[in-house]
Amino acid sequence: MLKEKLSGVFIPAITPFAADEEVQYDKLEDNILKYNKTSIRGYLALGSNGENKSLTIDERLKILEVFVKNKQDKVIMAGTGCESTKETIEFSRQAAEIGADFVSVLTPSYFAKQMKDEILIDYYTEIAESIPVPMLMYNAPGFAGGVKISPKAVGKLASNKNIVGMKDSSSDGIMGYLNATRGIEDFCVIAGSANFFLTGLICGATGGILSLANGFPGKCCELYDAFKSGNMEDAVRLHFEIFTLNAKVSGSGGVSAVKASATMAGYNGGAPRKPLKPITSVQYEELKKYLEEKGMV
Amino acid sequence: MLKEKLSGVFIPAITPFAADEEVQYDKLEDNILKYNKTSIRGYLALGSNGENKSLTIDERLKILEVFVKNKQDKVIMAGTGCESTKETIEFSRQAAEIGADFVSVLTPSYFAKQMKDEILIDYYTEIAESIPVPMLMYNAPGFAGGVKISPKAVGKLASNKNIVGMKDSSSDGIMGYLNATRGIEDFCVIAGSANFFLTGLICGATGGILSLANGFPGKCCELYDAFKSGNMEDAVRLHFEIFTLNAKVSGSGGVSAVKASATMAGYNGGAPRKPLKPITSVQYEELKKYLEEKGMV
Amino acid sequence: MLKEKLSGVFIPAITPFAADEEVQYDKLEDNILKYNKTSIRGYLALGSNGENKSLTIDERLKILEVFVKNKQDKVIMAGTGCESTKETIEFSRQAAEIGADFVSVLTPSYFAKQMKDEILIDYYTEIAESIPVPMLMYNAPGFAGGVKISPKAVGKLASNKNIVGMKDSSSDGIMGYLNATRGIEDFCVIAGSANFFLTGLICGATGGILSLANGFPGKCCELYDAFKSGNMEDAVRLHFEIFTLNAKVSGSGGVSAVKASATMAGYNGGAPRKPLKPITSVQYEELKKYLEEKGMV
Amino acid sequence: MLKEKLSGVFIPAITPFAADEEVQYDKLEDNILKYNKTSIRGYLALGSNGENKSLTIDERLKILEVFVKNKQDKVIMAGTGCESTKETIEFSRQAAEIGADFVSVLTPSYFAKQMKDEILIDYYTEIAESIPVPMLMYNAPGFAGGVKISPKAVGKLASNKNIVGMKDSSSDGIMGYLNATRGIEDFCVIAGSANFFLTGLICGATGGILSLANGFPGKCCELYDAFKSGNMEDAVRLHFEIFTLNAKVSGSGGVSAVKASATMAGYNGGAPRKPLKPITSVQYEELKKYLEEKGMV
Repeated sequence: MLKEKLSGVFIPAITPFAADEEVQYDKLEDNILKYNKTSIRGYLALGSNGENKSLTIDERLKILEVFVKNKQDKVIMAGTGCESTKETIEFSRQAAEIGADFVSVLTPSYFAKQMKDEILIDYYTEIAESIPVPMLMYNAPGFAGGVKISPKAVGKLASNKNIVGMKDSSSDGIMGYLNATRGIEDFCVIAGSANFFLTGLICGATGGILSLANGFPGKCCELYDAFKSGNMEDAVRLHFEIFTLNAKVSGSGGVSAVKASATMAGYNGGAPRKPLKPITSVQYEELKKYLEEKGMV
Repeated sequence: MLKEKLSGVFIPAITPFAADEEVQYDKLEDNILKYNKTSIRGYLALGSNGENKSLTIDERLKILEVFVKNKQDKVIMAGTGCESTKETIEFSRQAAEIGADFVSVLTPSYFAKQMKDEILIDYYTEIAESIPVPMLMYNAPGFAGGVKISPKAVGKLASNKNIVGMKDSSSDGIMGYLNATRGIEDFCVIAGSANFFLTGLICGATGGILSLANGFPGKCCELYDAFKSGNMEDAVRLHFEIFTLNAKVSGSGGVSAVKASATMAGYNGGAPRKPLKPITSVQYEELKKYLEEKGMV
Repeated sequence: MLKEKLSGVFIPAITPFAADEEVQYDKLEDNILKYNKTSIRGYLALGSNGENKSLTIDERLKILEVFVKNKQDKVIMAGTGCESTKETIEFSRQAAEIGADFVSVLTPSYFAKQMKDEILIDYYTEIAESIPVPMLMYNAPGFAGGVKISPKAVGKLASNKNIVGMKDSSSDGIMGYLNATRGIEDFCVIAGSANFFLTGLICGATGGILSLANGFPGKCCELYDAFKSGNMEDAVRLHFEIFTLNAKVSGSGGVSAVKASATMAGYNGGAPRKPLKPITSVQYEELKKYLEEKGMV
Repeated sequence: MLKEKLSGVFIPAITPFAADEEVQYDKLEDNILKYNKTSIRGYLALGSNGENKSLTIDERLKILEVFVKNKQDKVIMAGTGCESTKETIEFSRQAAEIGADFVSVLTPSYFAKQMKDEILIDYYTEIAESIPVPMLMYNAPGFAGGVKISPKAVGKLASNKNIVGMKDSSSDGIMGYLNATRGIEDFCVIAGSANFFLTGLICGATGGILSLANGFPGKCCELYDAFKSGNMEDAVRLHFEIFTLNAKVSGSGGVSAVKASATMAGYNGGAPRKPLKPITSVQYEELKKYLEEKGMV
């Protein structure tokens, strides 16, 4: 039941902004309604690609409302990690009240040097026990000042009833997390990058939260389906297609390129909030040309 | 005039919390009134040691009010950096309205890989030109996912009238910033650590924002005075005293140890907000014993 | 033909030392004769686990002779990378003369900051074109001061007739190298760690050079065979067995633990050359107990 | 007596190569005879800038002979660090026999992860007690895969009679080493970069081993003299001159630029041994123009 809810492709959905940098809630709704028609399993609202840290708390709540209102049969995770335990709990409760199915909590990182396992274990435990929705941990050293939770700590935390999984976006960590939680029922490891989506699935991951799915949900679902049907040859071919594509999109331009690729693919992408800049027009044309050649837009 | 305001020792003041983690504004006020009697030049309110990222925006504003209300002849800088340009500007304006003399803006860091000079230059320029108080840049890779602004970028930004200085807390960067801004009038480089306070001063820095000054403002001012009076022998001796002390305090336990040392020295220190933990009782006793032996508490 | 030679499990064989730190060539011979009875494909002589950089050039040549003399049907690669192009070429020629089937050349690393693609491309090209045996590139940032060759550079170099493959021992690079060389005939990517041996194989790697195979060649070959026979369930189970084992052996104690595990498994392991130390007796007993429980020794 | 020998400016002398990459011993001799006329205190033979790791052992010995033969009143340190304790001892003894006044031993680094204090303390102790000349430790994480010896370990080792000092080339470590050895008589800390030569001297360092001195020994000695005569204003001015120059030379092009700058200044510089490349002609012209403008060549 839980595994089913956390299996498949999730979109860490981008936040469309107007020229004056205001959130375009209607454009977000348009995107969701369109994505809903694909076979994705759900959404991560307020994730890194949603530029969550560049949004005020009020904006975050309103965005989450848009997701919940339009979710249809999809699953909604909400990124609710803040720097203090207190604020993370408060915000997670608000997210639960609005209707998020899960919260995803990034490791705190401001005091990166202090974020040892001992502190992270207490952090995640206290939050999990203080909120009315199941929690996922989010490990993303690239966004969190290099902070990594250890496989050993994850192994311990995984036995907590309300800690139901983790998203891993480190470049080399997922096998350790899969290994540490192998055999723990009702704990799901989710790949946080297209780069190790397939290898994760083969070794026990249930799904992927893939920035690339903002522009190419179909391609990501195609890989998932090939894996599920045991068609390994197709799966590997799609893995490398997606790997290459990922390098050209988020690997080079980050969220700015993810948004540009979404625009090219017919979604409401647009520019990121400053200080991020859109990719340059040269980069835009190059990417577009590549996607056209591949028949992807 | 500007240089005078930014010369000497600044305390990046800690935030006292009650057992239930609520901010103790009255205890903060007590600290300020006590610090006011020393020869420090001023305060950094809402800095890293103030656990700014663990505070809500409302708490931050109230804390700043306490500083402004009690500042007497001291100078108040307020840490106002957020992840988006938009929010940093808004918060900086609020800080200015409350009465901060300067704002100090940390480099954004969530999208660390994107924080290249090009982006940081536009970020700082836009903020400086949108706010009614002079701005300092704050370079602190240890708190900002490794993000560093280059000396070259600082050299360019330093010619902006409203960018009046920077605080550098990297371990090896200050000479580059001093070199890049040498001869630019009305630009002040401030050492962000006791470790290079003296060598910074010798090479042109105007002051230091020193976590150690939370517990030992007198010792820090003593070093500054020895330097100003040209007494290099005393200055070097004090430099190594402070260097050793710094390793024992913030070098090992971060803000938790800074707060503990403030408690030992008679200020309202206390525990940090979670997920940070207080230093252990063993660490506490060791530190206390050391300080007693040195006659510092 | 080439692919066949580079497919399967390779042992990066340890170098036994006497109590006075002299190389025990006879004990090495014993090991080889024993390993020859397993289904490994061959050896990496003079690799990292052979402590090549702790050996004099004369010792290296004599060790290689022992491998060549006793190779039977196995394939011999020799680690011949030095810091200068000149010395690498000379040493590679000597290795070829002795009878190495391939040389494996680590990126130079003393001037790590300068080791950009441009330099590495010329380095590998010149060597490949100056020696009479086919060459493999060896990417191992952990032993090479963080130096990494880019997938793009590898893609270019792979078209050189005499550059027939690479060993990758970085924690997160192999997919990039596989992607960059996909479809280039007669170029083999070999996994340099048990951690990504299976996922590498699935995505096109031909084999693995696995420190773990010093103690457990059978287990490593078992995984390879499960993969080759398409038995993915067994392959994944073995992958995690080996992953866990690897963490307990080379992941914690490096070559010292690899040697200890080889001793436990009945090979001539012993102590590393100083300054490396053997693992402690506590570590030794722990590891032994674990291996006994798993029925591996 | 010891302090006197280790006080002042040392040149980590470059190795001139012919077009065929052979060592030009006669050109090296020319350089030494010219440098001898300046007020430098001595030489580091076989250091990083001498490309020691790109030289065979035989070449290294012959180079050292050239230094010893031509040393006149200068002091000769020889870089003798190898990867094994055994080989470092042997090579250090050879260097002593040839006539080196001191040996300078870099931390081993191939097994970087294992190079903890415990291992480094035994390493340095055993070497110091096995060789007939006094030893300096050499800490250079940039050339040694990030390996750093801790100030605490240095403090312990400094009490060994035959360990008489250390050269630190890390960007942020010298204050820790100076602090840990303050008051230990007959232990000298030497700055390994022009970037912290002055601040090191102020805080107790006895001298500097400065790559920049290959091209500009006079300027480096000028700074040293200003410091010794207590002329702090001149010293600081020269510090920034040298700091800027260092960024333009070794900071950008490493040993290749150091050699180019030596050529421009009238010494025998030339190209480095491959795989290093000379700086490009554009870089060469830029650097030359800068040096001409400053009147330095």
